[in-house]
Amino acid sequence: MSLNRIWAENRAALNGWLAIPDGFASEIMAHQGWDSLTVDLQHGVVDYAAAVRMLTAIGTTDVVPVVRVPWLDPGIIMKSLDAGALAVICPMINTAADARVLADAMRYAPQGGRSYGPIRASFAHGADYPKRANEIVTAFAMIETKQAMAVLDDILATPGIDGVYVGPNDLALTLGLAPQFDPTHRTMLDAFDHILARAKHHGKRAAIHTGSAGYAKTMATKGFDLVTVGSDARFIAAGAAAEVAAFRARD
Amino acid sequence: MSLNRIWAENRAALNGWLAIPDGFASEIMAHQGWDSLTVDLQHGVVDYAAAVRMLTAIGTTDVVPVVRVPWLDPGIIMKSLDAGALAVICPMINTAADARVLADAMRYAPQGGRSYGPIRASFAHGADYPKRANEIVTAFAMIETKQAMAVLDDILATPGIDGVYVGPNDLALTLGLAPQFDPTHRTMLDAFDHILARAKHHGKRAAIHTGSAGYAKTMATKGFDLVTVGSDARFIAAGAAAEVAAFRARD
Amino acid sequence: MSLNRIWAENRAALNGWLAIPDGFASEIMAHQGWDSLTVDLQHGVVDYAAAVRMLTAIGTTDVVPVVRVPWLDPGIIMKSLDAGALAVICPMINTAADARVLADAMRYAPQGGRSYGPIRASFAHGADYPKRANEIVTAFAMIETKQAMAVLDDILATPGIDGVYVGPNDLALTLGLAPQFDPTHRTMLDAFDHILARAKHHGKRAAIHTGSAGYAKTMATKGFDLVTVGSDARFIAAGAAAEVAAFRARD
Amino acid sequence: MSLNRIWAENRAALNGWLAIPDGFASEIMAHQGWDSLTVDLQHGVVDYAAAVRMLTAIGTTDVVPVVRVPWLDPGIIMKSLDAGALAVICPMINTAADARVLADAMRYAPQGGRSYGPIRASFAHGADYPKRANEIVTAFAMIETKQAMAVLDDILATPGIDGVYVGPNDLALTLGLAPQFDPTHRTMLDAFDHILARAKHHGKRAAIHTGSAGYAKTMATKGFDLVTVGSDARFIAAGAAAEVAAFRARD
Amino acid sequence: MSLNRIWAENRAALNGWLAIPDGFASEIMAHQGWDSLTVDLQHGVVDYAAAVRMLTAIGTTDVVPVVRVPWLDPGIIMKSLDAGALAVICPMINTAADARVLADAMRYAPQGGRSYGPIRASFAHGADYPKRANEIVTAFAMIETKQAMAVLDDILATPGIDGVYVGPNDLALTLGLAPQFDPTHRTMLDAFDHILARAKHHGKRAAIHTGSAGYAKTMATKGFDLVTVGSDARFIAAGAAAEVAAFRARD
Amino acid sequence: MSLNRIWAENRAALNGWLAIPDGFASEIMAHQGWDSLTVDLQHGVVDYAAAVRMLTAIGTTDVVPVVRVPWLDPGIIMKSLDAGALAVICPMINTAADARVLADAMRYAPQGGRSYGPIRASFAHGADYPKRANEIVTAFAMIETKQAMAVLDDILATPGIDGVYVGPNDLALTLGLAPQFDPTHRTMLDAFDHILARAKHHGKRAAIHTGSAGYAKTMATKGFDLVTVGSDARFIAAGAAAEVAAFRARD
Ligand SMILES: [Mg+2]
Ligand SMILES: [Mg+2]
Ligand SMILES: [Mg+2]
Ligand SMILES: [Mg+2]
Ligand SMILES: [Mg+2]
Ligand SMILES: [Mg+2]
Repeated sequence: MSLNRIWAENRAALNGWLAIPDGFASEIMAHQGWDSLTVDLQHGVVDYAAAVRMLTAIGTTDVVPVVRVPWLDPGIIMKSLDAGALAVICPMINTAADARVLADAMRYAPQGGRSYGPIRASFAHGADYPKRANEIVTAFAMIETKQAMAVLDDILATPGIDGVYVGPNDLALTLGLAPQFDPTHRTMLDAFDHILARAKHHGKRAAIHTGSAGYAKTMATKGFDLVTVGSDARFIAAGAAAEVAAFRARD
Repeated sequence: MSLNRIWAENRAALNGWLAIPDGFASEIMAHQGWDSLTVDLQHGVVDYAAAVRMLTAIGTTDVVPVVRVPWLDPGIIMKSLDAGALAVICPMINTAADARVLADAMRYAPQGGRSYGPIRASFAHGADYPKRANEIVTAFAMIETKQAMAVLDDILATPGIDGVYVGPNDLALTLGLAPQFDPTHRTMLDAFDHILARAKHHGKRAAIHTGSAGYAKTMATKGFDLVTVGSDARFIAAGAAAEVAAFRARD
Repeated sequence: MSLNRIWAENRAALNGWLAIPDGFASEIMAHQGWDSLTVDLQHGVVDYAAAVRMLTAIGTTDVVPVVRVPWLDPGIIMKSLDAGALAVICPMINTAADARVLADAMRYAPQGGRSYGPIRASFAHGADYPKRANEIVTAFAMIETKQAMAVLDDILATPGIDGVYVGPNDLALTLGLAPQFDPTHRTMLDAFDHILARAKHHGKRAAIHTGSAGYAKTMATKGFDLVTVGSDARFIAAGAAAEVAAFRARD
Repeated sequence: MSLNRIWAENRAALNGWLAIPDGFASEIMAHQGWDSLTVDLQHGVVDYAAAVRMLTAIGTTDVVPVVRVPWLDPGIIMKSLDAGALAVICPMINTAADARVLADAMRYAPQGGRSYGPIRASFAHGADYPKRANEIVTAFAMIETKQAMAVLDDILATPGIDGVYVGPNDLALTLGLAPQFDPTHRTMLDAFDHILARAKHHGKRAAIHTGSAGYAKTMATKGFDLVTVGSDARFIAAGAAAEVAAFRARD
Repeated sequence: MSLNRIWAENRAALNGWLAIPDGFASEIMAHQGWDSLTVDLQHGVVDYAAAVRMLTAIGTTDVVPVVRVPWLDPGIIMKSLDAGALAVICPMINTAADARVLADAMRYAPQGGRSYGPIRASFAHGADYPKRANEIVTAFAMIETKQAMAVLDDILATPGIDGVYVGPNDLALTLGLAPQFDPTHRTMLDAFDHILARAKHHGKRAAIHTGSAGYAKTMATKGFDLVTVGSDARFIAAGAAAEVAAFRARD
Repeated sequence: MSLNRIWAENRAALNGWLAIPDGFASEIMAHQGWDSLTVDLQHGVVDYAAAVRMLTAIGTTDVVPVVRVPWLDPGIIMKSLDAGALAVICPMINTAADARVLADAMRYAPQGGRSYGPIRASFAHGADYPKRANEIVTAFAMIETKQAMAVLDDILATPGIDGVYVGPNDLALTLGLAPQFDPTHRTMLDAFDHILARAKHHGKRAAIHTGSAGYAKTMATKGFDLVTVGSDARFIAAGAAAEVAAFRARD
């Protein structure tokens, strides 16, 4: 199942985040009701081999498998797709040239230059995957720098870029603000609105990283097509901290 | 740091539980304020190699490393100690003979028959570990069947058994009740009280598995020396489920 | 899906064999039409951690997950069930006492002494797994020695033993014959017939290891309920050897 | 043993392909009579750590170890050589500049810019490996796009490029044809002939990926110096599918 | 190559020890001139999966692969043999019954009860391995307790026990002495002499663990058939400590 | 603890080297008295997943964790920092442009373009890591080619480059000399002196790779700020070779 099926229902995809390099942790997450789960090869403690285990675990359910790659590199983008990712989020797309490299890596000729060899994808998504691949994959360019904001329309206009994914922390840093989950600063909110508006103008998808269901809901209501909440790592930390605090609390 | 240090402060140890076979997940847990963390080789998705990674991660903090072994088997008990566990929880100690096997595996001669070779423990706990090992390790016999209840005093009287660890789920099953976290059934509560009382009578430690800080606190107040709450796996499931539900909720 | 569902269709289950400790290899196998796949922890190059990866891969399909444990040991039998195996094949069940140990490890009280903690099984087979577990698991005792043949009825009469699994190679060795795939020796064929007949007499299942679809089919026709053919390792060896031979052949 | 030794016998090297990230699977392959085996880091489910295990397994035999890298990246090319690969196949060499980057990464100064540190190669290929390395390694540039065909002579003329490796699937895609094993389309066959002829003209090696021993033999007869057939993953799929079909067939 | 080949040269085998669970570390060791290398599953940080990687690495050379199992358990003994170990050292053989269990697990019927399935051994040691296995494997019973000393002749007289392996540390502990490498205490030296003499009397092999080449040489001169020196872990610690000390030393 | 703390003591940091991809091997090293340990992702048999295990093991001590990345690639540089490395050594910085890419990847805006997500670093180095990160990390540009020597001042003048790390082997190769540990050739010594002098001139740190404590001490005395000696892999090889030689020596 690709993200397109969720979007066909005219709703935002609720996306979970995976930073722990273990298949069982991913399998637990896959049973909690997310529309999609993103294996984070950038800031997660995850490499390709872990990603395969995690994508396999996601594959025991109907959750849409997504990968955030560590960097703009055709090799890992293609390996992620071959391993079964149906969407790729690529960090730091700061120029139209960056966007073209990403787009090129995501689809087979003639739309792009993806190399042929969908080794796990053909099992995970059916023997007809090669024919459907160009239609069912989604390429997200991360917009997370001042530099990217300046060329946002060029990035959005790039053929093969299906959407943008807002990275609030890095965007804040490059705008001279502190990284912060679920920002309320006017500058940040304006940036989010602007990105969303330009994406819609170009007929592209908009996605955003958030730190809570409430913020995510607000963003989905605004029109974002995919909203990310939390991560396996954060749920462990928060859940454990809460129990420890409750136990240690003076009555 | 062994459990004895915590107990020297006249308080119950707050123990977390690790079921995910990943060092980073364990490291997150180790930073949340637990007194000890138990690597669960029995019902966790964990084997010896994962346990080493997890114990290493715990070793980046002062949290006391504990292992629950998969079964009463001197080989894995000794390997856990060699890998740096300072306490071992052994499931299904149902007879005095079981207790003697456990006790024998936990300490070097003349107290027991532990084989010499503390390969990681000597790094993790200091070059003088071999001399101190018999003093700083803790052997917990799990009391979790009707059969064990019938010979509880024999188990508690076994030299080298430092304490008992109550397994409510299996105890419930063998008492004809459904497994349940934090039971309120009279039969269960009576069993807990009985075990605690007999342990104290024998001058041994009593520990118990719980599902919430509140229940754990009640047990600690009763006099249990170590109380377990939650697990990394449960925190992921609960945290994710809560966020998904919050997002999906109609306002 | 358990083996019972296949048997409800009044046909033999076609079982594949997994000796390579890799999730992707298992996933390939899981897409080839087998009814069940057995992760071989005994003679396969497989340990528990690999088994989890392999069971997860099988879990991306409807194939029934089975584990052959390395030896009669309640610890690994229970860990296999917790990891999602719906059937366990245990080697070298040579006495009724062996059979009782196996049966005891397979089911929760009051039928047996399986310890409670179905960590992956509850995700893989549904939240109601704990209630259904005793019904949906299958315990196979391997009959593979002269000694076992002598007490076959005692083994078959053991409550909780759901069936026997014939190991032709070890049986041959203990009967003074050379190990051989798909034996035609009268002694072996008589043994197979005898085991099958006694199993049916006791209302238990009979399964057998074979080396080819043809032999397996013959056995299924005789009345065996589960027949194993080949293995991932054998398919690599045979497929590669055939291609190399074809290339090297003089025309 | 390098590929040069096989070529010194005036015959084509028969190359097998490894897509399963497991040492034992590779070791099985290494005993089936191949001249060389290629660890596929591009479309195989393989990363560097798996490659080391696989190269070690190949190293238990005399089979020549080859690596296909995931992308044109000096880091992984050099790590593959350090890990013991004696030949490197690099995908998507589409320009003379690409070819120069590949060539530069393959050999020590003054021929190239390979960084010094042959950590496993010095054990696998002898203490004199550093002195012999530039002679015994083979750099294959993959020719698999229309773009590459247009500058084929420039690529072949690049010093340090020892040969070209034809990738039929990607070549087909960029020529507007469907990817297909063992193509018979005139356009493809002409392309193969052209590449072979130009390689020979430049005194370079030509290699090609095929799907069967028969096609490979035809290519070897034409003059290709290395022909690849099948893969561990394909042998599992084909072998299992054949046995399942044979069992399910109505007689 | 089995230990018998070395002994056919009328000399003691020089055995190295592997405690680090990594194939490359083992491969380095395998190139240093040892006759045999022992993968230590007992006190090494090693489990079965690591052992396979380590045995594969040893298999790139002619060094004889040995495994010390974690405990007397037929499952892991047989898995070690299947994985290619040609000798097994089993700790804590303290009774004749223990010795019989070990012996039984080491050889196929009719000599013993080893289960058939030499999955890696058949590649590592040749297709005729099954026929030769009973001849080429070596079973070492560890003599390392006072209890074992008391029944030494019974252990040595057990058919299928090929030799004894002296564990000085555990022996010291049970004799009331401190564990110590290369002991000079009369009690220990007498014990060594006694074990050696009784082994020779029974026509069995004698082996011993030492901490230095000098002590090992003395033991070999006395008549021990296999002498162990050092370990990968000890070489790292000693080598690093020496360099650090040299650097930090005031001139 | 960062390298700055050691340098605040006005002494050279003594750096050890890790080429074996195992946490326990690293943990042994971390207890031998080094100031810092470098996980070598370039010529070590190490990838990112191993690096995490190794950095975790180092994190059980106060040793400063350093990573040498495989190549100039922002993705792996940032992943190394996120995983807890406090210094990064980047090979083959041959131009000022290379130096700028390295510097940019090492620090958050506005000093650089490091992407935000210090997943393990925030546990390993404290919750205030994000604020302190730009101050406590160290970027070493490897100077190891003739080409780099020609633009040494430009590299040293690059903002965000904290120091240079001399790679003697590659430098020797590009200067037309044989790679050699601890060179005495005039050309090499002059190069070392020149690099050291220019680094000091620019107020930057200078570091160098050596093969022995003696040479390292000489370099530290000259003024190098960090000196590397040996590696886990070399200590195994040297220690084992010495013991084997001692045993085999004729008296
Ligand atoms: Mg970002
Ligand atoms: Mg229990
Ligand atoms: Mg058998
Ligand atoms: Mg291609
Ligand atoms: Mg011992
Ligand atoms: Mg270098």
